Amino acid sequence: MRRTVLLLMAAAALAASAAILAPGTGHADQEVFVTQIPAGYRDWKLVSVAHEEGNLNDLRAILGNDVAFKAYREGKLPFPDGAIIARIAWSYVPSEENNKVFGRAQSFVPGPPPDWYLQFMVKDSKKYAATGGWGYAQFDKDGKPAPEAKMKTCFPCHEPIKARDYLFTRYTP
Amino acid sequence: MRRTVLLLMAAAALAASAAILAPGTGHADQEVFVTQIPAGYRDWKLVSVAHEEGNLNDLRAILGNDVAFKAYREGKLPFPDGAIIARIAWSYVPSEENNKVFGRAQSFVPGPPPDWYLQFMVKDSKKYAATGGWGYAQFDKDGKPAPEAKMKTCFPCHEPIKARDYLFTRYTP
Repeated sequence: MRRTVLLLMAAAALAASAAILAPGTGHADQEVFVTQIPAGYRDWKLVSVAHEEGNLNDLRAILGNDVAFKAYREGKLPFPDGAIIARIAWSYVPSEENNKVFGRAQSFVPGPPPDWYLQFMVKDSKKYAATGGWGYAQFDKDGKPAPEAKMKTCFPCHEPIKARDYLFTRYTP
Repeated sequence: MRRTVLLLMAAAALAASAAILAPGTGHADQEVFVTQIPAGYRDWKLVSVAHEEGNLNDLRAILGNDVAFKAYREGKLPFPDGAIIARIAWSYVPSEENNKVFGRAQSFVPGPPPDWYLQFMVKDSKKYAATGGWGYAQFDKDGKPAPEAKMKTCFPCHEPIKARDYLFTRYTP
C-alpha cells in the first residue's frame, strides 16, 4: 500500500515536471526562441556556403541535420518538424600561407569566430507557430544566447522568403 | 573432374584479372592519378570553407570522408591510408535575393560550377608513394578527369606544405 502511494506520488511529480518542461505551446502570439545549442551540429552535412561582406564580413557554412538535409535534397517544402539548420560564421581573413604558394593575394579563409558565431533554425510547427514554425537561435563564441531584443529581429528578416519556408539558403549540389 | 577443371580455370581467370586490376605499384618514380570520383563525397563532413579570388574566383567547401575527418579533428599527421579529401568549388556570384533583404550589396553565394568543379586527394601511401602518399584528382562539371599535363601540376603546388602532410586546408571548428 505504502509502495503504491509512493509510486503514485512519483508519477504525479513526473507529470508535473513534464508539464513544466513541455515545449511552450498555446501562446501563438508570443515568440519562443531556442536557447540551447543543438548537440552534434558540427557533424551535420553541408547545405551550402556563402560570403557576407559589409558589417558581417564573414565566411559561412550552412549545415543541416539528417531531417533538414533530406528535405533540402528532395526539395520538399515546408520542412518537417525535427529539421534543424545550423549557420556557422567565421571572420573573413586572408591566408598568407596560401597566397605565398599561389604567388598572389587571392585566398581568403576562416579566421576567429565573429560576435555572432552560431545561428540555428529549429522546425517545430506547434512550438514555434508564431514565427512560421521555426524557432530561431543565436549564440556568441562562448555559447551565450543573444538577448531577446536581438532575437526578435530574426523572424521579420526571414519573412520575405516565406515561399521557401523562410530559408535563405538553397542547397548547393 | 570436369567440374574441378572448370573451377580451377575460373580461379585462374579471377587471379589474372585481379593482377590486372590491382592498384599500380612498383613504379614509385611515376605519378599515378585518381580517375574515378569517390562515391558519396557530397555526404561527407565539412572540414572548412574558403574564397579564392583571381582567376579562380570561387567559393569552395572542403569535405572529408570519415577517415580524413577523424584525422583532421584529432590533428593526426600524416593522415592514414583511406583518407579522402574533397574540394568542391562553385563560381562566386552575388545573391540578388539576399541583398534585397539586407538592403545592400553584400551577399555572395555559390553559382554554377566552374571549369574545375571537383578535386580530391586520396591517401594510399604505397600506390601514391611518388607524390607524398596522396593521389590527386580533378574533374570538370561533367565528371571528366583533367588531362595528365594538368594533373602533373598538383603535387608541386602541394609540396611546400609537406610539414602538414601536403594539406592546405586546416580544420575549422
